[in-house]
Amino acid sequence: MSDTLRLGIAGLGTVGVGVVRIIRQQAALLEARTGHKISISAVSARSKNKDRGITLSDYAWEEDPVALATRDDVDLFVELMGGEDGPAKDATEAALKAGKDVVTANKAMLAIHGQALAELAEAEGRAIRYEAAVAGGIPVIKTLMEGLAGNEIKRVMGVMNGSCNYILTRMENSGKTYQEIFAEADGLGYLEADPQLDVGGIDAAHKLAILSAIAFGARVDFDGIQLEGIERVSIEDIRAAADMGYKIKLLGVAQMSGRGLEQRMQPCLVPDTSPLGQLDGGTNMVVLEGDAVGQIVLRGAGAGEGPTASAVMADVCDIARGLRGPVFGQPATSLVAAKSALSKMPAPYYLRMTLVDKPGVLAKIATVLGEAGVSIYRMRQYEHDDSSAPVLIVTHKTTQTDIEAAIAAMDGTGVLAGAPVALRIEEV
Amino acid sequence: MSDTLRLGIAGLGTVGVGVVRIIRQQAALLEARTGHKISISAVSARSKNKDRGITLSDYAWEEDPVALATRDDVDLFVELMGGEDGPAKDATEAALKAGKDVVTANKAMLAIHGQALAELAEAEGRAIRYEAAVAGGIPVIKTLMEGLAGNEIKRVMGVMNGSCNYILTRMENSGKTYQEIFAEADGLGYLEADPQLDVGGIDAAHKLAILSAIAFGARVDFDGIQLEGIERVSIEDIRAAADMGYKIKLLGVAQMSGRGLEQRMQPCLVPDTSPLGQLDGGTNMVVLEGDAVGQIVLRGAGAGEGPTASAVMADVCDIARGLRGPVFGQPATSLVAAKSALSKMPAPYYLRMTLVDKPGVLAKIATVLGEAGVSIYRMRQYEHDDSSAPVLIVTHKTTQTDIEAAIAAMDGTGVLAGAPVALRIEEV
Repeated sequence: MSDTLRLGIAGLGTVGVGVVRIIRQQAALLEARTGHKISISAVSARSKNKDRGITLSDYAWEEDPVALATRDDVDLFVELMGGEDGPAKDATEAALKAGKDVVTANKAMLAIHGQALAELAEAEGRAIRYEAAVAGGIPVIKTLMEGLAGNEIKRVMGVMNGSCNYILTRMENSGKTYQEIFAEADGLGYLEADPQLDVGGIDAAHKLAILSAIAFGARVDFDGIQLEGIERVSIEDIRAAADMGYKIKLLGVAQMSGRGLEQRMQPCLVPDTSPLGQLDGGTNMVVLEGDAVGQIVLRGAGAGEGPTASAVMADVCDIARGLRGPVFGQPATSLVAAKSALSKMPAPYYLRMTLVDKPGVLAKIATVLGEAGVSIYRMRQYEHDDSSAPVLIVTHKTTQTDIEAAIAAMDGTGVLAGAPVALRIEEV
Repeated sequence: MSDTLRLGIAGLGTVGVGVVRIIRQQAALLEARTGHKISISAVSARSKNKDRGITLSDYAWEEDPVALATRDDVDLFVELMGGEDGPAKDATEAALKAGKDVVTANKAMLAIHGQALAELAEAEGRAIRYEAAVAGGIPVIKTLMEGLAGNEIKRVMGVMNGSCNYILTRMENSGKTYQEIFAEADGLGYLEADPQLDVGGIDAAHKLAILSAIAFGARVDFDGIQLEGIERVSIEDIRAAADMGYKIKLLGVAQMSGRGLEQRMQPCLVPDTSPLGQLDGGTNMVVLEGDAVGQIVLRGAGAGEGPTASAVMADVCDIARGLRGPVFGQPATSLVAAKSALSKMPAPYYLRMTLVDKPGVLAKIATVLGEAGVSIYRMRQYEHDDSSAPVLIVTHKTTQTDIEAAIAAMDGTGVLAGAPVALRIEEV
């Protein structure tokens, strides 16, 4: 690298514009901190003439991101287009093969093609850095890969989709249903063009898959994630959970044990006094647990122009400073295909049932649970006017398999006035 | 560096023992993550024969840390002795002059001699890394210097002395006085040999001085910190603050503006619903604010064998990976001596007064405040049995100078039944 690190930026949406702004406005600061000038040689986006509020005339324009990525005057290809395949992946591969480093914010591409891209990058002696791909402005990749490098990581947890956390917080504060708040959030432009990426948990699961690979030295395994979105979370459950001292969060959890790697992205209950329980609105939080460090909690904006551009620039500065380590923290060829341990880690569960109001029904439920090996830690039956009785149970630690067996057995007892709801309680 | 990074470790207290343990137990993990074996060539400590629960016979023993630091078979000198001068500084300088990199947990040495040591290191082309010097296991140095490298930092805040936060939390939960809880904490071994380092705020101020230098590209300036410990915090103020919706924390704040650099370490009120307000017990929290990223909050253990050793090992791994940037994030010779802007940043204040119980006294206080340019945001007078009336005021934003002038003026009115207490409210 010469004294100047020359960038080619593909994708000029919110994040791309933020990156261009920082490079223009903070030139002196960036040079002082990295020892190198950081310049932009060329840019590429879908529409050349859209008004983005920034001046692009100083930079060459490329229609084709592959052409951009392979230009002679580009040292570092910054991929901000998104999409797991197509131009983003083509241009990333082309950049690596042309001897360029890559900085990307593309969680989908890394969650699906991370292993192949990491192998390519390392074979070419180049870096792929992706701080912006997970939890926006929070430097969680750096913290996990470098800041906790002396730790055997035990568990990684996170609320990593601000839109889902906004919806759940709004439901709680307003008492409105999921459908009402979803419509509100969609109207405010808070959701992806395909909202299923947000509320279906897919976006957050992409992030979890990436963190998991780094934390446990495992090949990124998006398909190994037990995935459930927030569509089934009802206002009744939010209220009932609150009454028992919990909040409902779309929580990603990855942990490794002798049983294998467990990765889950699903609505969970967390204690309302915990940092995760206190996280309201669109903010993100990641909890990292290491054998030496204990628990580290990181909180910050998970999206938006400034925060995401800040993360991209951290990677750009690292590349300028010569930091060019393995993509997932250790050589890609050494990453193991971890055995999946889906649903095997025991946890307490929350059960909400509506029972017919007849003598002996609670005893029947308790018997069914006992026979399934599920033991009751706390139980509440609420006053009620009609012929069905709302009952909440918090169990001792049990497995998803046992909970599912117990619920199946309840079906045969004739005491249920509606389908029971079971949600995992994550101990934090 | 050869394939192996060879360490010389001086200081085998809690942290040193933790580092030795990690290097012995996690050899394979460390090699996978850094691409290098990490070994220990020699160690040094005050007493050779003390039982530390670890095997030291594999390592050469040096009585003299300077001799250790300059051994031919040492690539990296790990300084865990502590103390701003004496052997720690001598050995650090000797190591740098002998072409060794240095990792240290020594906040006092860096807060006092950081500039000179940084200039020496950079002249020798060596690194000094010190993640463990600030907030224990929380990777705050890395986050600030690298993770937020694209940001102009606006403010850095932190609760960075776990012992003080423990004392304040215990006072609040038990209703006991500072003196009672201090004695309890001292008896439990929670305080430094010289407790003034903790309760006087000195230890936390060392940490703030280091963060400030990195955040603002300024020469480390410990003497420029407005410093007050927690000895004056009364149980009455903790109760009164809680009643107004605040917690009292020993809070470090550094911010740069056109007026200059303001650095304070003092008891402050923070909203009880904020992350800082919710931080109970011995945990540390650092809040970093950047122009692009907004607010990032980091939380974790600020002390103890595992967390501090985790931070030391992060630095060791970075050195193994070849990361060897300027000590304070930009070349030491480019750091500016920032103008000190002590007490100039306006803030709301909490005022607790005990007034004689006579007609017109509140009017007098209000008049005095008004004449000093201090305007009242909220006020509460409490019911009382005796001849003096407790009054709490939260002001609008004002300066320390104006608050002090107002308090001086109150003295002349004859309405005070005791000395007023003024505490800054930090907006978080």
